[in-house]
Amino acid sequence: MKDRKLILVSNDDGVDARGLENLINMVLPYGDVFVVAPEKGQSGMSHSISLLEPLRTRKIKIGTELSIIAVSGTPVDCVKLAINQLLPRKPDLMVSGINHGSNSAISVIYSGTMGAAIETSLYGIPSIGFSVLDHSKDADFSLVVKHGTKIIEDVLENGLPPQVSLNVNFPVTDEKNYRGFKICKQTTGVWKEEFDKRTDPYGGDYYWLTGDFHNFEPGNEESDEWALANNYASVVPVKIDFTEYNTINELKKRIK
Amino acid sequence: MKDRKLILVSNDDGVDARGLENLINMVLPYGDVFVVAPEKGQSGMSHSISLLEPLRTRKIKIGTELSIIAVSGTPVDCVKLAINQLLPRKPDLMVSGINHGSNSAISVIYSGTMGAAIETSLYGIPSIGFSVLDHSKDADFSLVVKHGTKIIEDVLENGLPPQVSLNVNFPVTDEKNYRGFKICKQTTGVWKEEFDKRTDPYGGDYYWLTGDFHNFEPGNEESDEWALANNYASVVPVKIDFTEYNTINELKKRIK
Repeated sequence: MKDRKLILVSNDDGVDARGLENLINMVLPYGDVFVVAPEKGQSGMSHSISLLEPLRTRKIKIGTELSIIAVSGTPVDCVKLAINQLLPRKPDLMVSGINHGSNSAISVIYSGTMGAAIETSLYGIPSIGFSVLDHSKDADFSLVVKHGTKIIEDVLENGLPPQVSLNVNFPVTDEKNYRGFKICKQTTGVWKEEFDKRTDPYGGDYYWLTGDFHNFEPGNEESDEWALANNYASVVPVKIDFTEYNTINELKKRIK
Repeated sequence: MKDRKLILVSNDDGVDARGLENLINMVLPYGDVFVVAPEKGQSGMSHSISLLEPLRTRKIKIGTELSIIAVSGTPVDCVKLAINQLLPRKPDLMVSGINHGSNSAISVIYSGTMGAAIETSLYGIPSIGFSVLDHSKDADFSLVVKHGTKIIEDVLENGLPPQVSLNVNFPVTDEKNYRGFKICKQTTGVWKEEFDKRTDPYGGDYYWLTGDFHNFEPGNEESDEWALANNYASVVPVKIDFTEYNTINELKKRIK
């Protein structure tokens, strides 16, 4: 076959996750697939990189149409190692996920799934992160598998602007009630934590992180939270520039 | 004393880092200081949170003017635990650092120092991350100690807009050549990695992450990289919205 596309796949739930298996099957019809995924679960690892530990790799499968390599580090480590060391050439597309759990709103900044997708986009490679709003191991991926290929086909055909990735989240619903894709903005809000304080059998205290999302714009129909609550799959184009431009001029007057 | 300010301090180099000690001394004149910092070094941990491990705390010092608690997790864990569990009330200011090494340009997304500052800003608390462009343990913090208080005083007096933090980086230079603060935008660019591949004594391969920053806008005098290269301390106002608004309309035409 000539002009085969090369597709990089990663995730944050680890190389054994069902979501990854589903995503591999989604992209196999579109090209040669190279999976570089974390050896262990990396939920909540955000954009972290391994500076204090070296990385180890484990070849699970090496083939023409499908290769799978596990990496001892984070999702972003996987992407850096894949692009700079493991892949035979620059990939045409990168997909991340399917994440077990939501990466909408501010959760995008804690997400290892989106960390991997965003890191890929920095290299000028179009990337898509897929998530479903179900944390369980038994999450139902059927809506993503059926409809997510539409996004994959669009990006393979039309690309994305430089350094842009897509954050795609699917609601928990059925085919009948699913309303299609909605292009959105990231919802403004914050997770309010209520730590679960416990005592171990030896008298030591420890804390588990739990919390609820507080939506600062619950009625905004352009936001991803609104879309998901209304049974749309949300699609947020993502680009990394943390600069708050609106504040620059005021600060210039204050600080010299 | 009445109306004492409460100042939260954290970092990513760990509770024993010299940069943290310097920062504590910088803010002690301005109020009661509560330090909640990682037990161990957390460089490159970005905005990661501990979902798979519970958090442990260790009280190093509890006092009226200065308390220090070490946490087993990441910088963002420290902030969440501080605000939701450990602090007596909502703090008036949070400072993070002083980081040993640069957090300018795209490095802001990998930075645990800025992860902690950004997380704090999400709660509506003004926060400032301080870094110097010197990774070494013996980094010279004298410029930050002398001039950084100007930023602290400004933010204590004037505040910051909601959900905005400051990313402040100091160049490696001396008092004579230091040119003051410059309010900037985050420089666009990418780290290009060249992994250092080694073999352990037992024949196993491992990789160390190394790399160089590629600046996409080297001549932009409004960028933080330009400011630092010209002996200014860069001040970038930071707000988290990953949405790439410029792409929304095009995607709305393509994906429905």
